[in-house]
Amino acid sequence: MQFQISKELIAKIEEWVQAQNSAELRLYLEELHHADIAEILEELDLDDATYVIKILNTDKTAEVLMELDEDDREKILNNLTAEEIAGELEEMDTDDAADIVAELDQNLKEEVIGHIQDEEHADNIVELLRYDEDSAGGLMAKELVKVNENWSVTGCMSEMREQAEYVTRVHSIYVVDNKDRLKGRLSLKDLLTAPSDAQISDVYIDKVDFVSVHTPGDEVARIMQKYDLEAIPVVNEMGKLVGRITIDDMVDFIKEEAERDYQMAAGISEDVESSSSIWQLTRARLPWLILALAGGFISVEVLGTFDSAMEKHGELFFFVPLIAAMAGNVGVQSSAIVLQGLANNSLRGSLLNRLLKEIGLSLLNGAVLAILLIGGGMLLLGLNFEFGLTVGVSLVSVIITASLIGTFVPIILEKQGIDPAMATGPFITTSNDICGILIYFSIAKLILGF
Amino acid sequence: MQFQISKELIAKIEEWVQAQNSAELRLYLEELHHADIAEILEELDLDDATYVIKILNTDKTAEVLMELDEDDREKILNNLTAEEIAGELEEMDTDDAADIVAELDQNLKEEVIGHIQDEEHADNIVELLRYDEDSAGGLMAKELVKVNENWSVTGCMSEMREQAEYVTRVHSIYVVDNKDRLKGRLSLKDLLTAPSDAQISDVYIDKVDFVSVHTPGDEVARIMQKYDLEAIPVVNEMGKLVGRITIDDMVDFIKEEAERDYQMAAGISEDVESSSSIWQLTRARLPWLILALAGGFISVEVLGTFDSAMEKHGELFFFVPLIAAMAGNVGVQSSAIVLQGLANNSLRGSLLNRLLKEIGLSLLNGAVLAILLIGGGMLLLGLNFEFGLTVGVSLVSVIITASLIGTFVPIILEKQGIDPAMATGPFITTSNDICGILIYFSIAKLILGF
Repeated sequence: MQFQISKELIAKIEEWVQAQNSAELRLYLEELHHADIAEILEELDLDDATYVIKILNTDKTAEVLMELDEDDREKILNNLTAEEIAGELEEMDTDDAADIVAELDQNLKEEVIGHIQDEEHADNIVELLRYDEDSAGGLMAKELVKVNENWSVTGCMSEMREQAEYVTRVHSIYVVDNKDRLKGRLSLKDLLTAPSDAQISDVYIDKVDFVSVHTPGDEVARIMQKYDLEAIPVVNEMGKLVGRITIDDMVDFIKEEAERDYQMAAGISEDVESSSSIWQLTRARLPWLILALAGGFISVEVLGTFDSAMEKHGELFFFVPLIAAMAGNVGVQSSAIVLQGLANNSLRGSLLNRLLKEIGLSLLNGAVLAILLIGGGMLLLGLNFEFGLTVGVSLVSVIITASLIGTFVPIILEKQGIDPAMATGPFITTSNDICGILIYFSIAKLILGF
Repeated sequence: MQFQISKELIAKIEEWVQAQNSAELRLYLEELHHADIAEILEELDLDDATYVIKILNTDKTAEVLMELDEDDREKILNNLTAEEIAGELEEMDTDDAADIVAELDQNLKEEVIGHIQDEEHADNIVELLRYDEDSAGGLMAKELVKVNENWSVTGCMSEMREQAEYVTRVHSIYVVDNKDRLKGRLSLKDLLTAPSDAQISDVYIDKVDFVSVHTPGDEVARIMQKYDLEAIPVVNEMGKLVGRITIDDMVDFIKEEAERDYQMAAGISEDVESSSSIWQLTRARLPWLILALAGGFISVEVLGTFDSAMEKHGELFFFVPLIAAMAGNVGVQSSAIVLQGLANNSLRGSLLNRLLKEIGLSLLNGAVLAILLIGGGMLLLGLNFEFGLTVGVSLVSVIITASLIGTFVPIILEKQGIDPAMATGPFITTSNDICGILIYFSIAKLILGF
């Protein structure tokens, strides 16, 4: 039953487009899910994709456009007139429409909004554009079903039915007072089983989770996940019900956040994909590499100050990459665990306990690795014991330092209000490389003397 | 409106527990959401937490138990008898109950299942235990609402109502034939508006997304996310409807997968948290560190073969950490992008195109970095041009190699059926360290001669 994209399918679509056979094409595509059509469009060249968008109904293409990558969507929209774009927006939920408008150039933005026929829809879109895109206000849609607490159950049925027409999935009916302030919610079941002469205020549930327009997206995600919510209402500063966030949008948000964190940890500072242009990829990757290069310069300087060791103990330099690699790996491990703890709000206990635990863990790991290093070094590389001891002691010290840096740098950044994810990957490895080398040669100087 | 855990709250709870004041405690906790109670339990010591679990109703505690960390849950369950555990399981949905049973020791497992009163519930749990926990079968619950296509609309209303009692959220009503094979679905709206003498077969929608019990979890997540599904039915090998997966379970799954990938990239091979024991943390971290140590040994050997350079060009060794760090960073960036492409199924185009693109990208990044390195090296470190050129050319070569290794190792692993996430982090950095040093000294030997 699964839709499967194939070279043959793409070839057939391209044939239809070339032959301007819009009837066949429409017949075939109307049967497909919009997400599948989006997958097809991503394989077509721009002119063909635009042709397909133009021959399909706007209620279908509006959904297709939402499924496309931002880059592909931008290209297709550039081929449409402001009026055509406005036509697409009319068919979209307000949250999707606002996302698309936000991607347009400032001039085009105003022109497109001006072409939207439904004035309320246009107002809603403009309202949503005011909020930060990663806040609840930026994530919510205006579409929802609400009833006034003072209405009678029977009286509001037709009103509700009308509202529900504009809402893809109802989830919950929200209850507001005369000033539109959120009071509670109503399940469809309660409504159906309520006596017909009852008032809404008699039957609604006054316990309802909600967020403010300014609540950050990751906090919304945490709440919806913790309480297994499929939708959450959003209120403004006055407690007025202004929108609703549904779980399918949160799933996309959670996925994007996870990808962003992952990329950040790998030293990629913009959202890029393997299909992004070389220019985009360079912009995302080069800054971190320049940071690493700067760190590299410092390590050259540090090593330079120990050049007196080269004559008597040149083999010390052979162990530099080993020491640096261990410092980098330990630091990345520690920072990853702390960052996930910070993200999940699960970091408990005092800083002192954390410090003692990290030192204990590092001593344990360090001891095992030092024994392997000294044993392996003496057996395989023929080191003498004094030299092995030097490298072993350095390794343990470097591991302790690296794990402390990896643990506490993110915690300190978080306390300073800086995104602690900045501290993963290149930043931690670079600092730990430098500290590791410094510690290593200092200990070597102490033990071996040079 | 948000529940906020605080030291005062925990102190109050502990006071009630000490005073065995079960009435107050029950009164307070019954008002709380089960996820909030779970948060409180995680702050209490084991005896206090067990006391709380014992005084609450099983319908509440069953939900609380599901919200706890696996470790905390295990400890509390160890304090309960098999009969008490069975009582909790009776109140849980089959998927949650099966997850808990799977965590028990083999002996206890059988004893607990034997104590479950509801035989059908017990059978369902045993059935779910047969499936791999990361497959659709392992993720699904048996609870769902289904109707036979041959029933009349009015005839099945009471049957449906009865089924719905055991299902937290209905989402969709599934339609099956006489052999229980999935035929389609029915929306509540369709059902309410259908003429009362209609048969189910007249009104149901025969387009329905479904997965097989053997579909891997990440594929289920991809389908549900792509088509914005809130629930998906699961069929067995004969097309029989056997269960249903809901979006809230998939949200947890997606989150866990993302955390797993993140940890894997950081060289952490088991699911650990900052609160895990030192022993668990060591088990998760040490294997990768041993791998890095082994890589370090190889780099010592490689450097050893170039020791003739030390006399004439000792400063070459000062640049080793810089070269190794750049190789590691570039490799991690490349592998992160490819891995996300593989995970999202969005890696398109031929391998040759990918190869050319990576080389182009590396040349661009490498050129910028080499110019900075040569310029900075001559100005800040006083290098001569020949030496600067050596390091610069090496840097470009190392960057190209590292990005190719980072790109193609995951692709090759994926083709071999090995989890490509294994190739991130420590593995890529270690291989790139070694290759980088080898390339660097080979080029240096060529240009400088030693």
